[in-house]
Amino acid sequence: MTQLDGGVVPPVCTPLTPERELDVPSLERLAAFLIDAGMHGLFVTGSTGEVAYLPDEVRYRTLEVVAGVAAGQVPVLAGVIDTTTPRVIAHARAARAAGADALVATAPFYAPTHPTEFPGHFRAIRAAVDLPLIAYDIPSSVGSKLPADVVAELAADGTLAALKDSSGDLEGLREVLAATDATALRCYSGSETLADLGLFLGAHGLVPGIGNVDPHGYLRLYEAARRQDWDTARAEQTRLGRLFELIRVGGPRMGRYSSAIGAFKEGLVARGVITSATTSLPMVPLDDAEREAVRRHLAEAGLL
Amino acid sequence: MTQLDGGVVPPVCTPLTPERELDVPSLERLAAFLIDAGMHGLFVTGSTGEVAYLPDEVRYRTLEVVAGVAAGQVPVLAGVIDTTTPRVIAHARAARAAGADALVATAPFYAPTHPTEFPGHFRAIRAAVDLPLIAYDIPSSVGSKLPADVVAELAADGTLAALKDSSGDLEGLREVLAATDATALRCYSGSETLADLGLFLGAHGLVPGIGNVDPHGYLRLYEAARRQDWDTARAEQTRLGRLFELIRVGGPRMGRYSSAIGAFKEGLVARGVITSATTSLPMVPLDDAEREAVRRHLAEAGLL
Amino acid sequence: MTQLDGGVVPPVCTPLTPERELDVPSLERLAAFLIDAGMHGLFVTGSTGEVAYLPDEVRYRTLEVVAGVAAGQVPVLAGVIDTTTPRVIAHARAARAAGADALVATAPFYAPTHPTEFPGHFRAIRAAVDLPLIAYDIPSSVGSKLPADVVAELAADGTLAALKDSSGDLEGLREVLAATDATALRCYSGSETLADLGLFLGAHGLVPGIGNVDPHGYLRLYEAARRQDWDTARAEQTRLGRLFELIRVGGPRMGRYSSAIGAFKEGLVARGVITSATTSLPMVPLDDAEREAVRRHLAEAGLL
Amino acid sequence: MTQLDGGVVPPVCTPLTPERELDVPSLERLAAFLIDAGMHGLFVTGSTGEVAYLPDEVRYRTLEVVAGVAAGQVPVLAGVIDTTTPRVIAHARAARAAGADALVATAPFYAPTHPTEFPGHFRAIRAAVDLPLIAYDIPSSVGSKLPADVVAELAADGTLAALKDSSGDLEGLREVLAATDATALRCYSGSETLADLGLFLGAHGLVPGIGNVDPHGYLRLYEAARRQDWDTARAEQTRLGRLFELIRVGGPRMGRYSSAIGAFKEGLVARGVITSATTSLPMVPLDDAEREAVRRHLAEAGLL
Repeated sequence: MTQLDGGVVPPVCTPLTPERELDVPSLERLAAFLIDAGMHGLFVTGSTGEVAYLPDEVRYRTLEVVAGVAAGQVPVLAGVIDTTTPRVIAHARAARAAGADALVATAPFYAPTHPTEFPGHFRAIRAAVDLPLIAYDIPSSVGSKLPADVVAELAADGTLAALKDSSGDLEGLREVLAATDATALRCYSGSETLADLGLFLGAHGLVPGIGNVDPHGYLRLYEAARRQDWDTARAEQTRLGRLFELIRVGGPRMGRYSSAIGAFKEGLVARGVITSATTSLPMVPLDDAEREAVRRHLAEAGLL
Repeated sequence: MTQLDGGVVPPVCTPLTPERELDVPSLERLAAFLIDAGMHGLFVTGSTGEVAYLPDEVRYRTLEVVAGVAAGQVPVLAGVIDTTTPRVIAHARAARAAGADALVATAPFYAPTHPTEFPGHFRAIRAAVDLPLIAYDIPSSVGSKLPADVVAELAADGTLAALKDSSGDLEGLREVLAATDATALRCYSGSETLADLGLFLGAHGLVPGIGNVDPHGYLRLYEAARRQDWDTARAEQTRLGRLFELIRVGGPRMGRYSSAIGAFKEGLVARGVITSATTSLPMVPLDDAEREAVRRHLAEAGLL
Repeated sequence: MTQLDGGVVPPVCTPLTPERELDVPSLERLAAFLIDAGMHGLFVTGSTGEVAYLPDEVRYRTLEVVAGVAAGQVPVLAGVIDTTTPRVIAHARAARAAGADALVATAPFYAPTHPTEFPGHFRAIRAAVDLPLIAYDIPSSVGSKLPADVVAELAADGTLAALKDSSGDLEGLREVLAATDATALRCYSGSETLADLGLFLGAHGLVPGIGNVDPHGYLRLYEAARRQDWDTARAEQTRLGRLFELIRVGGPRMGRYSSAIGAFKEGLVARGVITSATTSLPMVPLDDAEREAVRRHLAEAGLL
Repeated sequence: MTQLDGGVVPPVCTPLTPERELDVPSLERLAAFLIDAGMHGLFVTGSTGEVAYLPDEVRYRTLEVVAGVAAGQVPVLAGVIDTTTPRVIAHARAARAAGADALVATAPFYAPTHPTEFPGHFRAIRAAVDLPLIAYDIPSSVGSKLPADVVAELAADGTLAALKDSSGDLEGLREVLAATDATALRCYSGSETLADLGLFLGAHGLVPGIGNVDPHGYLRLYEAARRQDWDTARAEQTRLGRLFELIRVGGPRMGRYSSAIGAFKEGLVARGVITSATTSLPMVPLDDAEREAVRRHLAEAGLL
């Protein structure tokens, strides 16, 4: 079944060998681990998947491997992340060939851009490749926010099948949900720590980075919210929020992304899912004390 | 002669046909126009060259065409603009094969990054491809500023041959110039409107976008500054600053980049250098009144 | 009863005569209207009360009038909003003399400041005037966010009795609530549109600007949340969110604050509570069409 | 002679006793020191004068003391820094009574504001108190930039006599100078480190914070620029820029303003001008090692 209909869709980490090559067996184990845990889809080559670090051929190979493991059991969403329309379309074509069930594209970045240009951007991508298109709202990376009225316009005319909201702006999410209520648009929250609030507002699904490490926790949270059991949802969120603090293990000696991706991967090594916690250049690797701290976080969360 | 030693090095526009294909004859005429005007180098696939909009094969073909016209008369610098180290290195290898004399790379973007990761980024690029490396400081596009001490460290150890400063931060430029005085680093100002101030501070060269349209003006400005004739430099800058106001012709109905690139290209059409002012998707094209306004700006500047 | 123990505490508008003098009878009617509606406290000379526009003597007179009407029925909180510690302390002394039951102070502003200076700031205010102290976190006005660990430190040692969170950052609010769980700190959300989420996270009260116009709605929302009736709370929030759109009536021809304060006051005129919708200089007044639009919003919300 | 006609007008530090009272004898010595050094005016209760920290009565007393020392030899400019129009007007009246020759006011702050409201703000201040009015453009403190067209409009109609530009935006300064060329507006640069560039662009004067410590240096810079001797101006600027690095002595353990004001005052103690380097609450004081570092900076600059 490969429909986009909400649920938990983790942004899959991309395991690397110590030589920084794609580690295919680890990736296969990770995909299988997440599907077995009941995830409703897999989001490949997203920000958590180090998409910004992967050369094209690695991006497409990663997608191929995960699509092979998924084998139609759950939809595979492919991040087609690049600066502007023509470059995104090139990725979209390659992603389709590599087995993607849906495409995830941001607003343009690097090039100074403007909301008046967003509809043309998404419409051109949708017209070029016939797959469901998901808008990825991530102002911290692209420097602009997708306005609710633009999302609503593109939902109404069928350009967008879904929105992944990683803006952290719950007021904006509430506005989008109200403006698209009569459409088929599915909204996914990209927040690890406010997932319960996103679902409370009516979001249909979650895309939590640390869902790589604790998919079962996000599934419990999602299912509790579905049955309106808000006490359980909130309690699970609190537990997951504490676990998420592992992203700070690297402290000020590195960027927060180096620390977060390093910690997710170290967590997957600790849980026996992948072989190496190697991250891409120029990220700073965790040291032994930091790796130990990741394991303490997992132990406290009952994951070891 | 292909040494990087200051002077005026315009970021070459990338002419497109109305069907948005690379317009090779126009590009050849533009490269020849700029070389004939006395430019000291050509910067291909930079921000003004719509690098963020060009698929890989168009990027490399553009470079090949310009390198063919330059034929060693002036150095050809290639923008290898992408999100992080591994992707930049892929472009760097292709650029070398296509005839680049030097490479221009920014700090990482899209991926949340950090100054602690910048030295590793530039060193890995320099180590992978043996061409002079120019750091491109453009916070408005990448979201972070290259700290002066990082530039100085990378100038001192030979990683960087030059800096292109498009930060607009003259205090930062002054700091870099002081910190790299004893090194071979060449500093280029990317400002169209404060070029005289950059040279006054000791910058070695200019990379003005509107130098596509009026290369002779920037050459006069540069030469006046070289002989410390500041009255002439300032007067020329004032004239060029008025011309530069053409970037606003598109007004609020489009992004400033749509307006600026559209206006540069329209100016090149008006001057008979290229055939079409077409810009890449999803940029908004200028309308007839706006195109007329561009021509008025050129007429007032004595360029028609 | 004048204890700070959560509930709805609207930031009281400051009615002005058409000559921009304090309109005491209108202020008295407004205070009585809010107390009759069941508000748990009144916050005088806050941002909604145009504190930044009121000369000192008007600030203190406003407080005196409201304290007179409250007469101990509900606590009266006084905003002591100024740039740094010595100036805030001067207001705090005057506010105490004018009848305040508690003080509301922001982090320093205008002067470039730093989190290392925040504890000293709040401790000096608390030491100078013996009234419960409420920290007001409003980054959009002061340019910095109160870090959760600073709030927790000042809650633990008794410096702070409460926090008014107008940051819009629910992740930060969640962090503060977790970090102060064992203290007596009361947290108030300053959001008009995410009040339900704030209470869901465990906030103890609300400080909604538009609570001047519809106090009964926020009381219903608050009481539903208290009994964990989240469907009712959310539905009421949706209705209030639609009403809140009246703050945009002024559109782009004025600042958003001119539009919002003008609309709140026009709504109070429409409901017969105050006499004139006059705002302070240099705010732009609403025109007739905009005032009519405010009334339509009220009619749609069932308030006329 | 008390005309505003350019030159060096330092923003005078406000000396405090160790008990944080105004130190009148030190203030008198400082004012005399600056006048003797040839300053063309004195700017009292500016940002460097800790205006944001001074209670009203200290602000006005400071002004009275300096006006008494100046005694008409040079104009005394008074910062009337507060959040919005009515509060600024209150200060303006008091400043006039205390002997100010001109008033310096910023755009509104704290209250969310908008460029459409700026003309009304400055016009109302000018109408209320008949003294020359200087607009103070300091986006880092007030959160908005004075647009060049607003400044030009207010220069053309006589509302503004001068502009103090502390925005660091030389492109903006160039634009203002071009737009006000036909008016009587005088432009002062507030930059310590780009003063030479400001004068190169045509600014009429300087307001350098560290001019408290080294007024003679800024006078030499100004006079070299007046006679178009740019080599001398730039060399003096380089020396002063090195001296200015003393503002960083406090490092990351305090805010940059604590460090800068502490260092200026320590420098004045070291030069024998004032008695104590005490700063206002909640600023963090320099420790002994940091004070020693300030003295080393002065020694290197030849000031001890």
